Amino acid sequence: MIVGGVAGGMSAATRLRRLDESAEIVVLERSGHVSFANCGLPYYVGGVITDRQALLLQTPASLKARFGLDVRVNSEVVAIDRAGKTVTVANLADGSRYTESYDALILAPGAAPFVPPIPGAERALTLRNIADVDAMAAAVADRPDRAAVIMGGGFIGVELAENLIHKGFEVTIVELAEQLLAPLDVEMAALVEKKLIANGVRVVTGASVTAIAEDSVTLSDGSTLAAGLVIAAIGVRPETTLAEAAGLELGERGGILVDEHQRTSDPAVFAVGDAVVKRDVISGAQALVPLAGPANRHGRLVADVIAGRAASAKPVLGTAVVGVFGLTAAATGWTEKRARAAGRAIRVIHTHPANHAGYYPGAEGLSLKLVVDAETDAVLGAQGAGGSGVDKRIDVIATAIRGGITASELADLELSYAPQFGSAKDPVNMLGYIAENLRDGLTDTIQWHELDAELARGVQLIDVRTPSEYAAGGIPGAINIPVDDLRDRLDEVADDVIVHCQVGLRGYLAARTLAQSGRRVRNLDGGYRTWARL
Amino acid sequence: MIVGGVAGGMSAATRLRRLDESAEIVVLERSGHVSFANCGLPYYVGGVITDRQALLLQTPASLKARFGLDVRVNSEVVAIDRAGKTVTVANLADGSRYTESYDALILAPGAAPFVPPIPGAERALTLRNIADVDAMAAAVADRPDRAAVIMGGGFIGVELAENLIHKGFEVTIVELAEQLLAPLDVEMAALVEKKLIANGVRVVTGASVTAIAEDSVTLSDGSTLAAGLVIAAIGVRPETTLAEAAGLELGERGGILVDEHQRTSDPAVFAVGDAVVKRDVISGAQALVPLAGPANRHGRLVADVIAGRAASAKPVLGTAVVGVFGLTAAATGWTEKRARAAGRAIRVIHTHPANHAGYYPGAEGLSLKLVVDAETDAVLGAQGAGGSGVDKRIDVIATAIRGGITASELADLELSYAPQFGSAKDPVNMLGYIAENLRDGLTDTIQWHELDAELARGVQLIDVRTPSEYAAGGIPGAINIPVDDLRDRLDEVADDVIVHCQVGLRGYLAARTLAQSGRRVRNLDGGYRTWARL
Ligand SMILES: Cc1cc2nc3c(=O)[nH]c(=O)nc-3n(C[C@H](O)[C@H](O)[C@H](O)COP(=O)(O)OP(=O)(O)OC[C@H]3O[C@@H](n4cnc5c(N)ncnc54)[C@H](O)[C@@H]3O)c2cc1C
Ligand SMILES: Cc1cc2nc3c(=O)[nH]c(=O)nc-3n(C[C@H](O)[C@H](O)[C@H](O)COP(=O)(O)OP(=O)(O)OC[C@H]3O[C@@H](n4cnc5c(N)ncnc54)[C@H](O)[C@@H]3O)c2cc1C
Ligand SMILES: CC(C)(COP(=O)(O)OP(=O)(O)OC[C@H]1O[C@@H](n2cnc3c(N)ncnc32)[C@H](O)[C@@H]1OP(=O)(O)O)[C@@H](O)C(=O)NCCC(=O)NCCS
Ligand SMILES: CC(C)(COP(=O)(O)OP(=O)(O)OC[C@H]1O[C@@H](n2cnc3c(N)ncnc32)[C@H](O)[C@@H]1OP(=O)(O)O)[C@@H](O)C(=O)NCCC(=O)NCCS
Repeated sequence: MIVGGVAGGMSAATRLRRLDESAEIVVLERSGHVSFANCGLPYYVGGVITDRQALLLQTPASLKARFGLDVRVNSEVVAIDRAGKTVTVANLADGSRYTESYDALILAPGAAPFVPPIPGAERALTLRNIADVDAMAAAVADRPDRAAVIMGGGFIGVELAENLIHKGFEVTIVELAEQLLAPLDVEMAALVEKKLIANGVRVVTGASVTAIAEDSVTLSDGSTLAAGLVIAAIGVRPETTLAEAAGLELGERGGILVDEHQRTSDPAVFAVGDAVVKRDVISGAQALVPLAGPANRHGRLVADVIAGRAASAKPVLGTAVVGVFGLTAAATGWTEKRARAAGRAIRVIHTHPANHAGYYPGAEGLSLKLVVDAETDAVLGAQGAGGSGVDKRIDVIATAIRGGITASELADLELSYAPQFGSAKDPVNMLGYIAENLRDGLTDTIQWHELDAELARGVQLIDVRTPSEYAAGGIPGAINIPVDDLRDRLDEVADDVIVHCQVGLRGYLAARTLAQSGRRVRNLDGGYRTWARL
Repeated sequence: MIVGGVAGGMSAATRLRRLDESAEIVVLERSGHVSFANCGLPYYVGGVITDRQALLLQTPASLKARFGLDVRVNSEVVAIDRAGKTVTVANLADGSRYTESYDALILAPGAAPFVPPIPGAERALTLRNIADVDAMAAAVADRPDRAAVIMGGGFIGVELAENLIHKGFEVTIVELAEQLLAPLDVEMAALVEKKLIANGVRVVTGASVTAIAEDSVTLSDGSTLAAGLVIAAIGVRPETTLAEAAGLELGERGGILVDEHQRTSDPAVFAVGDAVVKRDVISGAQALVPLAGPANRHGRLVADVIAGRAASAKPVLGTAVVGVFGLTAAATGWTEKRARAAGRAIRVIHTHPANHAGYYPGAEGLSLKLVVDAETDAVLGAQGAGGSGVDKRIDVIATAIRGGITASELADLELSYAPQFGSAKDPVNMLGYIAENLRDGLTDTIQWHELDAELARGVQLIDVRTPSEYAAGGIPGAINIPVDDLRDRLDEVADDVIVHCQVGLRGYLAARTLAQSGRRVRNLDGGYRTWARL
């Protein structure tokens, strides 16, 4: 018996059939559809995906034909009787109720979009299932005024912003935090924000919507915004109503508590997907990671466990990616802010490589960030934003984390290279080189957010770029000594000095020269580009 | 003292400067240029890269200014006196000779294109450096007849074929082996061959050029081909003349022998790059891997060793990639043929996934192949051919191999997923699922090259695709029972049966159903597509 017929639930159902031809498998789904592509919904709103049918990967009929599954849509499970091993099902089509018994019960009810308890909240649209997307598509087609406010600048909010721009809306994202996309650090999220703004999206951070009126919203700063369309995309909360009512244990921040076999506190009840608590791969702490990959994987795993196979869930990294107007932003593992909040000693690296050899036409710029455990050299996390190839680098680093490859060892990865695809030293290798140099004390860096305090202390700042780069814009207070002149102008350099260039490479070269002249020197990590968030 | 001023040599020189401001560093380069982009040369021939200057990443002057390097072009080292620690340098510009002494000597002379000893061989052009590319570009611009024969279907041969097509040539590749691209297995290389043919390249395998006349070539089968332009791209041999003359130890199949510190049999002489013997990561055997990544990495490593830092070279996987008319082909580690030749018990998996979610527009097909050690479940190698995203999957698997992640554990990698970038179960995860099923005996497969023998034995073959797919073309001798009908038509199925579908997925489902009915069943790995090389 499976509650919820999409990513986690249906993966469990199909795998269970493959493992056991004779099992009786019933899937109960509250909405009118199963096996749909949640992740494609924003693109249907924007008309990127035009065929609604393409979102429906399977139907009850096709699942019956191929897998012999008993799939019932419009069927809400409203209660679980754990002692009697039955569930009460409400048939939403005709209002009737009935009970069904189970040997094993799998809960895969997902998560519900959070709607803030503010006046007018009932007018806010959310996006989770096919009914939602139909409603939103209709609202998009109907509204004559073309002004939309999206509450929340997470992945879904940002995807919807792009898609509503495609539809000709004036779009404002209102985000309570000081940045968009919490899985990124602020300076990386700034690149996404810049891209959104360049494409006509208005971004308001550090504010929230406090009231929704008929054609406008009020913000926490008292201002109002026209808003024919209001969307709530401020996050999701695990669907735990049913589990809680049944007395199943929940996690610290909500979510159904499960062990590594996805078993709840009741041995006959399993749970997977957005509804459950996962384990963080770095700290082992409880984590809510509402992503499709783990939902699918753990759904399959539950089937294995029920069929008596040895299988256990791994802690999660939370690798995620989003595309915004051609920019890719992706992340895996921990952010700098998270590592600092946890009190870890870390090393941070920013680079701005090209996605492939610069001499081959069409190279696009990337910004990458690596967060490294200063004690163990372990990779804690990575982030990327930029042209194509960001997802590749983040996937490689996610794999490296899983394989226990240290930051310095990234230098030794053998990644495919031809001029259209990468560089002889791939950007990931380069992160490894830099990590090794930091680990070995060959270079010392300073982060963009640490610079002001040092300058206030009176430390000298040298811009080692060319005079024309210096003239075109730099960091206030910097003097200019191009890297190629440095050996001849050592007498102009103070004993304690910070150097910077455009991306960090020439600064590193300068730092090596200066360090060997006995000076204390730090290189501005990521250079002017990270500092200026270019 | 460094012999050779490109990938390996110049990487050593610049790193050494960063480690040691006071070192005297002399780079001796036979050709007229240093630090050039070998890998870009084919694209300059084809006019994809139009700016010749873009190929020259550094010049002696720029390396002097930035790194204080003494770089001498047109300077061939013609002898090494190891006892006296000197080299004899021939100044190719003025014909003079002089000796220079060294404390440490780094040999990075690269490799030389192999030219077959056949009549007319002097007319065959090769491509290794800037002089070569200038000559080839001139020949391309000059020849009025527009017929080109490329001897050798390796990476460079294939890249040149594409580029000569861009230039309007009629191009024939003549390859001695039965397939192009030795780092791929024959059925994967066939996809590249198909792409070349679709774009007008003629491909002749299993033949060689035996003589070159003024406007034609003769093949081993006696036929002749018009050939205004003849190119030798049949491989490279390590440049060991100098090392051999100096009495340095060489490897079994040529190449300078070095230890994990890139030290030759003479402790004061180091060697890196295409000229040296590397270690294979899987067998530990000697290997010649002429790729830019290892050359750059090991160049840097030699500088570390000379500067007294702890560093040692890792064995190589040989990850490589090539782009051909928009198709990407890549490989890492061992091929099936290599593993079989080495007598390993292996499992082989072929899949044909889409590079991203099918419901999002623009999905492109990939063909992936995984070679797995049947005893340990270790990944021995992987290959891919298809649309964009092949390089990503091969890089992820190369990283997994390095991290000791087993084939089944690929299922648990958390790879970035949004509909434009991948699937909730990424193609790499899917390889892991299939590997796990094979490991656990949930499914048994048969390879495309094993099918004929089984059919000859009279084993039943069932095509489980739809009747219309079956009608459109299938494997001779197969009967058709669509997977969705199978449970109702079990009585038509023999006790020993092979099933197949288009790519392997439905065949797997059918195999699970049939296995549970007590039959011996094998699924044709990779389905009709692998069998038919589609
Ligand atoms: C718009 C959008 C975009 C997304 N984009 C991405 C992305 O790009 N990448 C990514 O990794 N993830 C993405 N996700 C998240 C991903 O879709 C989820 O992580 C995944 O679907 C979770 O699977 P699940 O099985 O836990 O829940 P769901 O897939 O949500 O399925 C749960 C189902 O259970 C049903 N249900 C709930 N309660 C009951 C009940 N009592 N009785 C019967 N049925 C019930 C619900 O109706 C629902 O259909 C996106 C999600 C959304 C909404
Ligand atoms: C056309 C082409 C395309 C390629 N494409 C790719 C690709 O896509 N991906 C990839 O990974 N690799 C590719 N490669 C291979 C890559 O370029 C080499 O692996 C790499 O350059 C090897 O570095 P190296 O330092 O050993 O030798 P090289 O870069 O060849 O440098 C050796 C230098 O030493 C000089 N030299 C030799 N003998 C002497 C002497 N006695 N005295 C002074 N100087 C001497 C030579 O003139 C030469 O310039 C390609 C190579 C070519 C030719
Ligand atoms: C559509 C859905 C029912 C498919 O479930 P599924 O059958 O488990 O998944 P797939 O069709 O991808 O097939 C995977 C199975 O085929 C096998 N397989 C795939 N390709 C194969 C091949 N070429 N050869 C052999 N086997 C293959 C895999 O091993 C796996 O089987 P296993 O789990 O027994 O190991 C389910 O994924 C679903 O409901 N998805 C939609 C919801 C969703 O995921 N939303 C979030 C993202 S938008
Ligand atoms: C051009 C060439 C001289 C460059 O050598 P290089 O200086 O070692 O390489 P790069 O310019 O890529 O810089 C790498 C260095 O900068 C550092 N670096 C790179 N980006 C950085 C950043 N953002 N911040 C700090 N340091 C950075 C790296 O750590 C590395 O230094 P290290 O080796 O001391 O650790 C050499 O690669 C060459 O001759 N290449 C052409 C030939 C070739 O490779 N051909 C085959 C492929 S076509």
